[in-house]
Amino acid sequence: MATETQSPLYIKMHVNDNVAIVVNDGGLPAGTQFPCGLRLIEAIPQGHKLALVSLLAHEKIVRYNVTIGYATETIAQGRWIQEALVQLPAARDLHNLPIADRPAPATSPLEGYTFQGFRNRDGSVGTRNILAITTTVQCVAGVVECAVKRIKEELLPKFPHVDDVIGLDHTYGCGVAIDAPDAQIPIRTVRNISLNPNFGGQAMVVSLGCEKLQPTRLFPKAAIPIQNTSEPLIVCLQDSQHVGFMAMIDAIMSTAEQQLTALNQRRRETCPASDLVIGVQCGGSDAFSGVTANPAVGFATDLLVRAGATVMFSEVTEVRDGIDQLTARAATPAIADAMIREMAWYDQYLKRGGVDRSANTTPGNKKGGLSNIVEKAMGSIVKSGSSAITGVLAPGEKLSSTSKGLIYAVTPASDFICGTLQLAAGMNMHVFTTGRGTPYGLAAVPVVKVATRNELAKRWYDLMDINAGKIASGESSISDVGWELFHFMLEVASGKKTWAEHWKLQNSLVLFNPAPIT
Amino acid sequence: MATETQSPLYIKMHVNDNVAIVVNDGGLPAGTQFPCGLRLIEAIPQGHKLALVSLLAHEKIVRYNVTIGYATETIAQGRWIQEALVQLPAARDLHNLPIADRPAPATSPLEGYTFQGFRNRDGSVGTRNILAITTTVQCVAGVVECAVKRIKEELLPKFPHVDDVIGLDHTYGCGVAIDAPDAQIPIRTVRNISLNPNFGGQAMVVSLGCEKLQPTRLFPKAAIPIQNTSEPLIVCLQDSQHVGFMAMIDAIMSTAEQQLTALNQRRRETCPASDLVIGVQCGGSDAFSGVTANPAVGFATDLLVRAGATVMFSEVTEVRDGIDQLTARAATPAIADAMIREMAWYDQYLKRGGVDRSANTTPGNKKGGLSNIVEKAMGSIVKSGSSAITGVLAPGEKLSSTSKGLIYAVTPASDFICGTLQLAAGMNMHVFTTGRGTPYGLAAVPVVKVATRNELAKRWYDLMDINAGKIASGESSISDVGWELFHFMLEVASGKKTWAEHWKLQNSLVLFNPAPIT
Repeated sequence: MATETQSPLYIKMHVNDNVAIVVNDGGLPAGTQFPCGLRLIEAIPQGHKLALVSLLAHEKIVRYNVTIGYATETIAQGRWIQEALVQLPAARDLHNLPIADRPAPATSPLEGYTFQGFRNRDGSVGTRNILAITTTVQCVAGVVECAVKRIKEELLPKFPHVDDVIGLDHTYGCGVAIDAPDAQIPIRTVRNISLNPNFGGQAMVVSLGCEKLQPTRLFPKAAIPIQNTSEPLIVCLQDSQHVGFMAMIDAIMSTAEQQLTALNQRRRETCPASDLVIGVQCGGSDAFSGVTANPAVGFATDLLVRAGATVMFSEVTEVRDGIDQLTARAATPAIADAMIREMAWYDQYLKRGGVDRSANTTPGNKKGGLSNIVEKAMGSIVKSGSSAITGVLAPGEKLSSTSKGLIYAVTPASDFICGTLQLAAGMNMHVFTTGRGTPYGLAAVPVVKVATRNELAKRWYDLMDINAGKIASGESSISDVGWELFHFMLEVASGKKTWAEHWKLQNSLVLFNPAPIT
Repeated sequence: MATETQSPLYIKMHVNDNVAIVVNDGGLPAGTQFPCGLRLIEAIPQGHKLALVSLLAHEKIVRYNVTIGYATETIAQGRWIQEALVQLPAARDLHNLPIADRPAPATSPLEGYTFQGFRNRDGSVGTRNILAITTTVQCVAGVVECAVKRIKEELLPKFPHVDDVIGLDHTYGCGVAIDAPDAQIPIRTVRNISLNPNFGGQAMVVSLGCEKLQPTRLFPKAAIPIQNTSEPLIVCLQDSQHVGFMAMIDAIMSTAEQQLTALNQRRRETCPASDLVIGVQCGGSDAFSGVTANPAVGFATDLLVRAGATVMFSEVTEVRDGIDQLTARAATPAIADAMIREMAWYDQYLKRGGVDRSANTTPGNKKGGLSNIVEKAMGSIVKSGSSAITGVLAPGEKLSSTSKGLIYAVTPASDFICGTLQLAAGMNMHVFTTGRGTPYGLAAVPVVKVATRNELAKRWYDLMDINAGKIASGESSISDVGWELFHFMLEVASGKKTWAEHWKLQNSLVLFNPAPIT
């Protein structure tokens, strides 16, 4: 790639591609001639596609060596390939997929990398030390919010080794069809978030009393791993001993003080990089996502897997069009089968609501040059790097302590639902790439944000943690930024604050509830 | 009803009923003899049903003059009718319903009642004067939260006639199938909430930029009523002029200052009671809900309708079993047809998710004596009083300025979704009855909470605004409490704070999105 950003530049992802994207900030005018001799016959915005050769109507449009669509009319060489010129191909049939037939490239273990983390009794490691208050139902959210405010003001200063106090507020718990076939997803999500490594292993719960999601249903006897011997601590607002509002607040504060006392004993200790559990995600994507930030994340994913860590990639509708790549990369046929089963479930879920995978792309994606979901998916899937896929996690499920390597954690692509489900799976750090720019953040784990473009990194200099735009401008390579991200993750895991943490930007937990509301 | 709470007491709702509920706090022991001679053959908890006569297996169990179920076995007189003894009847078929054939009782207009409200240019009246910041997407929620905190600290004190500043945070806006058939529901809900009378008629919007729910989609040209001539004020975080996080915050604060300046001109003025738009709802119901609080609310509903006000009742699954009562009470056949259409849609929606109306009842309802959804529905529907039903509103729709009287606003029974949809409909006050007890509150409008039982009213003395438990203990009549509530509503509409406002108990807005997530 070029070393000078001012000369006209395009990026072709694969030798077989017949389109490429414009790199230059502000796009390029009609008449621009590239060093190879190719000439633009119309102006093309940054990140948008140009035709490298002339295409006939119905001919394949190829990017990432994948057919992202078919030309809806003749397209001359040098023309801007706008969305309307690209006909969406049918989704890949889920039959006759390649199964576990593409072994991962041989790599050597990556040793000696460590971070300073909070080790829990079950072996998991926190990157932050947080008192989280689980709620069974939205009814208690107002009371918990009042209590959290007071705990932060009156108690937290007395416990210097605890980083924060948060309420795990959500909209589930009552007014929902709790016995519906799909209700297990939101229920296990709330349960498993409560057990996130950053919360120290002992759940504290505030319940109303009459809700459908009773504490005993949220935490059945066997739900708490045996390493964490304690039962959850429960405050029930309808209990007869709470006379008046302040009695409720006092009860929550007194239980919180018990929890804080225990959490305050935790100390950071040296942990191998293999204790990292990273959730990767992209949001507000543009055509550079698949060229800069996501390949850099993919490179870091490979480093993490080599170091023995766990990396989850997700977002069903953003990998659906690459299902053949994923089933081929599965470590075993059973893992490939699990992916196919989950994709089929999601296809059905969308169909039931009268839509398909094409509902994914946003106005911003399109403005950023992504014509459709196939093109978006090809750029999204590269976050998974090149390792073998060693596990599949259904929505809301928790990783077992032995699940290492690259895991496909099945989630919708919605940023908040994906993040919430990755929290439930047990991530202790989140990596989020963005091209259009989003101030996304979570209260429970640090979120490392990676910009796809120099312009965004410059404009949002105090929101983006890593700039992968340097890859497009030729100032850095994918491996440079991949290593930079890897080192930065170890620092953040050890306590360094991300920009989202600095500004306390915290988005809501959003549960995936495919079951009805009542 | 009795005047002494210690003597054994039951309440029979209708002369045709063959069951009644136990009134006494703590329930009654086996062997208790009532003044009528009837003797309990087992202990029965408060609010639970006793058999007034012996019932054969499969015989109808009748409460509210309605068959709430069939006896699963022979039930002796004086026995406790537990949930397992009641077989749920099939849902009423939606064909051959009585249509608009039960005229409302003749009543005289109720004149001379007023409150002090904030009149808007479109004629609607606010009960509070609030700066609300609409969000198009959850992505911006963290930034808006930071901005709201600063606006409250730095700007609000300069505008003494403005009551509060709130962010209209929600989980919709992107990662959703925005073109799905049912997506219009959440979209119009967000739009219409922004136009709630308490917000003064001029929307202020914070947008990310790349989201699916673009500001132009949220507010198409014709969406703002012409009386409110102004276009919404929009801050878009991805706009190129915002360099760095603080530039975003500054832009929001500067727009907020414009809004605050306009809102600060508003003054309370004398408004007739006909300007009230009340949403009624129940949550955490028990067997007393249908005996005390809901009948008192129904009485107040009738007063409000006589005064020319608007009252909305809602909660599909809690009126589904009384559909024949509702269609009979419709003012016109078209209104009855609309109700049937909406009920049929909801039946289908539940079926698609593998459940039916029986998914509604909660453990707390059952503990409180409600055996099933039919019994719960009969108790819920009485909130609607006895007036003719003059309109039907689909979920998320806004009342027209000419919609007066009793409106059936179609919503799920989930407290938060029902409240959110009633806000969108344009309510300026909320009345909420509860038997088990919930600390429910909303940021946008005052919530008046009515307790069904003396014990709850006493225990939650600083959370419940009105005690309807006095009806069961014979200290007050339904009309006494109905009038008390009516007068209290006028005071609250004029500025008196409810307990939920006093403690700042504010639950989340929860959108009803029957369409898929992507």
